[in-house]
Amino acid sequence: MLGPTQNGERYELSSPTAMPKAAGFLWNQRMMIQVTCRGYAVAQFMQPEPAKYAHPPNLEAKTFMQPEQNYYTHHPGRFVYIKDEETDQLFSAPYEPVRAHVDRFVFSTGKSDISWTVEYLGVRVEMSFFLPTHDVAELWTVKVTNLTSRSRKLSIYPYFPFGYMSWMNQEAEWREDLGGILASSLTPYQKAEDYPKTKHLKDKTYFLCETTPVSWEARQKRFEGEGFLNAPESLTKPELSNSDARYETPTAIVQYRESLNPGESKEFRFLFGPALNDTEVRSMREKYLSKAGFEKASKAYANYIQQGGGCLRIETPDKDLDNFVNNWLPRQMYYHGDVNRLTTDPQTRNYFQDNMGMSFIKPEVCRKALLTALSQQEATGSLPDGILLTEGAELKYINQVPHTDHCVWLPVALEIYLAETGDYALLDEKVSTKNGNNFTVFERCSRAMDWLLHARDHRGLSFIAQGDWCDPMNMVGPKGKGVSGWLTVATAYALNLWAAICDQHCKSDVAATYRQGADGVNKAANQYFWDGDWYARGITDDNVTFGIKSDKEGRIWLNPQAWSILGGAATPDKIAKILPQVDEQLSTPYGTVMFAPPYMGMREDVGRVTQKYPGQGENGSVYNHAGIFYVWSLYSIGERDRAFKILRQMIPGPSEEDYLQRGQLPVYIPNYYRGGYQTYPRTAGRSSQLFNTGTVSWAYKCLIEGLCGLKGIKEGLVVKPQLPKEWDGIKVRREFRGAVFEVDVKRGDGNHVKVVVDGKEVEGGKITGIEQGKVYKVDVEVPRE
Amino acid sequence: MLGPTQNGERYELSSPTAMPKAAGFLWNQRMMIQVTCRGYAVAQFMQPEPAKYAHPPNLEAKTFMQPEQNYYTHHPGRFVYIKDEETDQLFSAPYEPVRAHVDRFVFSTGKSDISWTVEYLGVRVEMSFFLPTHDVAELWTVKVTNLTSRSRKLSIYPYFPFGYMSWMNQEAEWREDLGGILASSLTPYQKAEDYPKTKHLKDKTYFLCETTPVSWEARQKRFEGEGFLNAPESLTKPELSNSDARYETPTAIVQYRESLNPGESKEFRFLFGPALNDTEVRSMREKYLSKAGFEKASKAYANYIQQGGGCLRIETPDKDLDNFVNNWLPRQMYYHGDVNRLTTDPQTRNYFQDNMGMSFIKPEVCRKALLTALSQQEATGSLPDGILLTEGAELKYINQVPHTDHCVWLPVALEIYLAETGDYALLDEKVSTKNGNNFTVFERCSRAMDWLLHARDHRGLSFIAQGDWCDPMNMVGPKGKGVSGWLTVATAYALNLWAAICDQHCKSDVAATYRQGADGVNKAANQYFWDGDWYARGITDDNVTFGIKSDKEGRIWLNPQAWSILGGAATPDKIAKILPQVDEQLSTPYGTVMFAPPYMGMREDVGRVTQKYPGQGENGSVYNHAGIFYVWSLYSIGERDRAFKILRQMIPGPSEEDYLQRGQLPVYIPNYYRGGYQTYPRTAGRSSQLFNTGTVSWAYKCLIEGLCGLKGIKEGLVVKPQLPKEWDGIKVRREFRGAVFEVDVKRGDGNHVKVVVDGKEVEGGKITGIEQGKVYKVDVEVPRE
Repeated sequence: MLGPTQNGERYELSSPTAMPKAAGFLWNQRMMIQVTCRGYAVAQFMQPEPAKYAHPPNLEAKTFMQPEQNYYTHHPGRFVYIKDEETDQLFSAPYEPVRAHVDRFVFSTGKSDISWTVEYLGVRVEMSFFLPTHDVAELWTVKVTNLTSRSRKLSIYPYFPFGYMSWMNQEAEWREDLGGILASSLTPYQKAEDYPKTKHLKDKTYFLCETTPVSWEARQKRFEGEGFLNAPESLTKPELSNSDARYETPTAIVQYRESLNPGESKEFRFLFGPALNDTEVRSMREKYLSKAGFEKASKAYANYIQQGGGCLRIETPDKDLDNFVNNWLPRQMYYHGDVNRLTTDPQTRNYFQDNMGMSFIKPEVCRKALLTALSQQEATGSLPDGILLTEGAELKYINQVPHTDHCVWLPVALEIYLAETGDYALLDEKVSTKNGNNFTVFERCSRAMDWLLHARDHRGLSFIAQGDWCDPMNMVGPKGKGVSGWLTVATAYALNLWAAICDQHCKSDVAATYRQGADGVNKAANQYFWDGDWYARGITDDNVTFGIKSDKEGRIWLNPQAWSILGGAATPDKIAKILPQVDEQLSTPYGTVMFAPPYMGMREDVGRVTQKYPGQGENGSVYNHAGIFYVWSLYSIGERDRAFKILRQMIPGPSEEDYLQRGQLPVYIPNYYRGGYQTYPRTAGRSSQLFNTGTVSWAYKCLIEGLCGLKGIKEGLVVKPQLPKEWDGIKVRREFRGAVFEVDVKRGDGNHVKVVVDGKEVEGGKITGIEQGKVYKVDVEVPRE
Repeated sequence: MLGPTQNGERYELSSPTAMPKAAGFLWNQRMMIQVTCRGYAVAQFMQPEPAKYAHPPNLEAKTFMQPEQNYYTHHPGRFVYIKDEETDQLFSAPYEPVRAHVDRFVFSTGKSDISWTVEYLGVRVEMSFFLPTHDVAELWTVKVTNLTSRSRKLSIYPYFPFGYMSWMNQEAEWREDLGGILASSLTPYQKAEDYPKTKHLKDKTYFLCETTPVSWEARQKRFEGEGFLNAPESLTKPELSNSDARYETPTAIVQYRESLNPGESKEFRFLFGPALNDTEVRSMREKYLSKAGFEKASKAYANYIQQGGGCLRIETPDKDLDNFVNNWLPRQMYYHGDVNRLTTDPQTRNYFQDNMGMSFIKPEVCRKALLTALSQQEATGSLPDGILLTEGAELKYINQVPHTDHCVWLPVALEIYLAETGDYALLDEKVSTKNGNNFTVFERCSRAMDWLLHARDHRGLSFIAQGDWCDPMNMVGPKGKGVSGWLTVATAYALNLWAAICDQHCKSDVAATYRQGADGVNKAANQYFWDGDWYARGITDDNVTFGIKSDKEGRIWLNPQAWSILGGAATPDKIAKILPQVDEQLSTPYGTVMFAPPYMGMREDVGRVTQKYPGQGENGSVYNHAGIFYVWSLYSIGERDRAFKILRQMIPGPSEEDYLQRGQLPVYIPNYYRGGYQTYPRTAGRSSQLFNTGTVSWAYKCLIEGLCGLKGIKEGLVVKPQLPKEWDGIKVRREFRGAVFEVDVKRGDGNHVKVVVDGKEVEGGKITGIEQGKVYKVDVEVPRE
């Protein structure tokens, strides 16, 4: 029913009903679109705030993507109706709105296009689209083929609804001069000062046809009549009514009437997107709407996507893993790093993590991001809740809720950048801020670490304010007293990472200071948060410790455990207690949940996280971002089997049962899978369908530095693979500092890792003096288990 | 196809398709609901901000009602599916979602309930509901009757979808202990300070059943399956699946399986509404969900509505008019005055006008409103953009856009209150404000008039800021220079009204001052705004005069004409020029438009009003609120035929063609009918379907004081009817200051109005010394035309 095709660069689903929300997504530098196998779509573009050009009825709330929710009949999508003119039989591709029991259905999501093949009534419909690299538009091709041995008369009706665009002003009509249906609307404004902002919005949506149709319809209600979308009244007539929409819900439907000989095909091209005015529509048409234009744009776009291929190719006994790691994971990481999730004010922690992933793709992007973030550092050394990327951007939504963790992510991202590039010169660059300060990157990092050390209470525990990570727990510390178990141990990790960088940068005295700081932090953590078998999550303003044995809900949290291992608070005896508790209390067939049991209702003395549905979002779901920290902590202590198991659970499949339960194709890691495995087994494991997550750069790090054990250091590359015990070997191709490492890992008889480079054993697995352009053959033997 | 029933207290429509948006509305003190003949509904309740308990998918934008837009298949509504168990045939009442071609369909909207009768497959379904007076809930009755002479086996499925309630947390299930389906959700919040506000919101929605059904469904998607709403998959099975919704779109469907003998009926009762918690749901059930509970609540609610009957009954040659005036107009006026359109911060001009209507229903409400508004008067004498009615209310949306007209409405409302009650003692009451001021009502009115006189430029013209009435023209005067033609002449009207009150209150010296002020204002208006045949609308910050002959769009505006007549700027020679221009340029078959021609695009030097669609909203529509001012100005100069024609056009019908074009039943005057009669004849005349409008109190005033000519003065009642020339007479019953006046108006042979009270002619038509409880017989002769 589903599986990869060819070399794994496509994923295919042959049923529209088994996983109705299975979706692919595409993006370019200014837009993204997610489209389901049944034809529903959510598309957003930047101007500079996210905006839509096809709208759900009724009036939409302007909010973040909500792909986990069900679609409904009138939700915007991209459809083609086919009517047999001789029998009046009707069906549609991809599947909606007619939902016919077609003979053949293929949904195919590629890295730079998405397509369907649908066969019914002896007709094949092939639909596909891609995006241009820089412009906001969808480039659609529809090909219709007569599969029978008799001539056929068909009507072909592309249907691209616009939805309810604006209560202020909306209309649509066929525009002969533009060769398409143009819908116009206006963004409402009420205050004079808003007009200059709204007047330049791309409030028009066009649906352009390469060839002129015989009839058209621009008024949604007229199209449907007393029929339903599965059998619109207009389609029972020989032609559409050529009706405009005047302050009525606009839509785009056109009709082509074709006679097809046996085996004959007809191909149509369409352009769908937003525009400011006619001139822009016209220039889009000229640029793209032709066979040559499509071919050129398609090649350019494929090339753009190709640049995000990453620096790792693996060949392991797990072919599904190989496919995901070689094709889809770097693509998802590229999306995050190249467009920052299409926001103008990314959360600072996201900005660091999304860009740290770019160290593996285009390190110069990460370098620039580090400088950008530091140029917004506050005089106190702290970092703001979000990084502003465009002129006039503002901190919105969650970025107005005070969080205390942002400085932690600076040395985390920096360490990866330095490991990949060895570019320690960055540390001596000067960065000035709006407040007039002018410090080097090195000084700024030290100031950020000082801020972390400072933002602690009399016990040495880190304040949490309204949140310390991800969505806030906004009633733990709003009075300025509550502290975070996680942030305390994470502070130690950040300080130790920074100390190691200081050492490499020949600043041992500075390193010693921060290492000492980390020791103090860890001591405090162990004194106040260690609950006997694991670390507590925090202590509220009112001195309530939570995430502990006596709690019925939110009893044990994953993050404090993972980061206490990373930061050094957890000694081996403590780790030995923690790991089985995580196994027992947090692991599920779909991954390790962020905490358990989920909160079933608001716990007012802990706060906001409990507002989410149990097992959903931050309320005890398999929150992959938390899971991947834990995976990294396990690799850091050589817990290779536990690490690999959890890492592998983040990718749906390979069993059909697992796909069905998750409801997602393995073309990305979602931000979470539903938890509540005990309470709500029916929905546990379901994908959030959301591909925005800080998980991916860490997952890549875990694969490269953990599983494959190919970690960069200042002088070169250290080789120390950590295979799961079932595996006999893997092959890895790793690009690093301009060289290529072809690594062959096998089980050997020794009791330590043996690394042979170009026939010569390398001491400690440390390859130095790397030459650009050179291909290194690396043979590795790892001990049998 | 449609018409009134019985004594006109019901209106009926026998086709669901001719006017798909034809709707009735109900309200009580805390909620309102508008429901179409096909079953779609929009309901809002107060807590204290407006909130929904059934939600459109997707995530709804929180905004004002948008009833002009089309509904769609998944829009929330109230439906009942009926399945013949022996044949598996399906239909639904009222009409959606199945849209069967039923044998009989009646939609019946009463003053205190709305009901349907639908017959198909030999089954009659009667659905009806009403509201309790104080609680937020819908009380539904469904009665199913076997119309055939054989026994029938039927399944009856009430279907009340909840919609997508919250992205944070939503679920639903059958609750045995409550006897219904309970959907729970949470309003999202992100900042700690918002939690105290959101935690007390009624985030649950219940659908309670008096009798226990055999099966139920709470998950929308499961209900539909691969079917559509016209044939949901669940209904093809013997029973519903009893499935809960867990962070899935919730719904409420229950199944009753009944055997009905020939002629037998079964009756079901349901309760639908929002609640904070189980306790509240339980208490609602106990209070209402029984035959006795329904009967008691129904009687109480009818009684509540009955109190808004108004003080006028007319009997004219126009029976449709009589019905509207005697039944529906006071009801609509009552809605406005009793609940202030369900807002917490009504616009000040709306607040005055909605409450001035209460002078005709419950004058004490108007009195209280005048005091409330004055208690928020600013130290400068100006009034705020909105009046805050609840603790913690804030000025929102349009009330943050500075307008300059609010003081005008104070003497307007006060004058009507005093005319109806003679309660001049009000003027001597002291009112203190938050700023510590303590003035009498008289002093406060004078201060408001002083502010109007002050807020003028060097030429004596009134500043417009970002708007002077209704929706703003927010780029005319934001720099503080632009002036308003309308507000200038309206200021004169306000000053003159106030001067007349001063005279009555024995303050002739004060009166003289304001009369002199009005003269100065009018002089300036005539100097700068008179354009040869009409008055201009304004002059912008950049000294562009608009609403003049040389304009291609927005050439002539109705308001400056109407108010120049009312305020005295327009001398008889000018009026003689104005009236034919209005006839020629502004009148249409559906009423007089607010200005013409409509703006086809933004005119940046005039501003925001042009953003609306041409002929829609404030952009050149038949904006009834503006029309009714003009009607009043016409009555004030004895232009009885012109006045009546426009007044009559505000009520749809009586021709079927007119109903169909407007798409509305005549149970209320909408805020506008679409204009653009020349440009967009297809949509011109269409009702906005919005029953919130300041039109209604003025319309009542025009009927009472204009058409019937029964105006209150300090000493009593002046009688001077103004019949249209086609009419030979009318009969009027007018309640006034506790007495009843039974007035019989006939054509007579004299050349002036002759008034005979209880057989005695009254000089000047002035009836004084009115005795409470007395019934006056008044015979009036008006001249033949």
